[in-house]
Amino acid sequence: MKAFPSSVRTVIRLLGSLPGLGEKSATRIAMYLIQKPEKEVLALAEAIIKMKKSVTLCKECFHLADDDLCAICQDPKRRSDQICVVETTTDVIAIEQSGIYGGRYHVLGGVINPLENVGPERLNIEPLLKRIERGGVEEIIIATNPTSQGEATARYLYDLLKDRGIKLTRIGVGIPAGGDIKYADPLTLKQAIESRRVFQ
Amino acid sequence: MKAFPSSVRTVIRLLGSLPGLGEKSATRIAMYLIQKPEKEVLALAEAIIKMKKSVTLCKECFHLADDDLCAICQDPKRRSDQICVVETTTDVIAIEQSGIYGGRYHVLGGVINPLENVGPERLNIEPLLKRIERGGVEEIIIATNPTSQGEATARYLYDLLKDRGIKLTRIGVGIPAGGDIKYADPLTLKQAIESRRVFQ
Repeated sequence: MKAFPSSVRTVIRLLGSLPGLGEKSATRIAMYLIQKPEKEVLALAEAIIKMKKSVTLCKECFHLADDDLCAICQDPKRRSDQICVVETTTDVIAIEQSGIYGGRYHVLGGVINPLENVGPERLNIEPLLKRIERGGVEEIIIATNPTSQGEATARYLYDLLKDRGIKLTRIGVGIPAGGDIKYADPLTLKQAIESRRVFQ
Repeated sequence: MKAFPSSVRTVIRLLGSLPGLGEKSATRIAMYLIQKPEKEVLALAEAIIKMKKSVTLCKECFHLADDDLCAICQDPKRRSDQICVVETTTDVIAIEQSGIYGGRYHVLGGVINPLENVGPERLNIEPLLKRIERGGVEEIIIATNPTSQGEATARYLYDLLKDRGIKLTRIGVGIPAGGDIKYADPLTLKQAIESRRVFQ
């Protein structure tokens, strides 16, 4: 590393601290950037600066947005009577990539986690209640992860919302598609059996 | 991807075009940058800009440098009577990391490759001759890679330098340390046998 100029060492150190990158891959990327035309390299650096300065959270659903509202909340073709409640913005992306869902989202910004001092008041639950109070919501799909914290958060939301005349659903849990029963852990198996459905 | 704001999509696309990164790892890095304090993210972007604007090639050896001369050419503790001739700047780094070499370098900037229209005039060979003419060089270690182009370049340098009263050496080739003869390719084996040394 000492054989590199200090400006290169700095880039390698900073790139190497990004998730999934170590010193070797950071060095390879730095060498690549040095060889690339200045215009392309500045475009990358400036795109990062622009993203950091412009990205905000959607005022409605707390997903990432460039404007007040995210692309999904701005889209008139999305059903506004369905809200899928997720933990994080990457959950939104995962569900969007499946292409299966046409409603809106609400990003909690985490899960209830007493060990890390995260109570319900730290999550975007108040704004969810306000969205519901404005009316027009017919179904809330609680899509927190099937972990103990995710389940606790789902249960908390269920208790909070159950008397509001809205259909409350929870995403299915069980053996993943393409999975194998003999390799499933006991908890997944238990949940898969509990959430069994009648053949149709 | 459409579910992301356009500023985020741009960063994911540009990061995803870097060597070793695909869309998934680029997305993970973008999400990480969004969560990090603005100061840290700007530091990364600005380090990339600074590197791109300040990194130049050493006027003496063509290794990467922040100034006119690279750190190695500036170091008075390095032997100046030995020059190790390598193909690229990453070869310098690899040899430096071994810690075995205390002389100077000369980076050719490639190898002779007729198929890609790279003749000796496209490499930093003239400046190497000028360094030698200035005097004080006692040994040239030709450390191009043991590929056909690297060998051709080594041979070209040998013919060019053999009558100048300088010791000319070539890095050893053969089975790598920790390697296994039964898995070595025939060419490596041939070279390993040809470059055998007398036991001492």
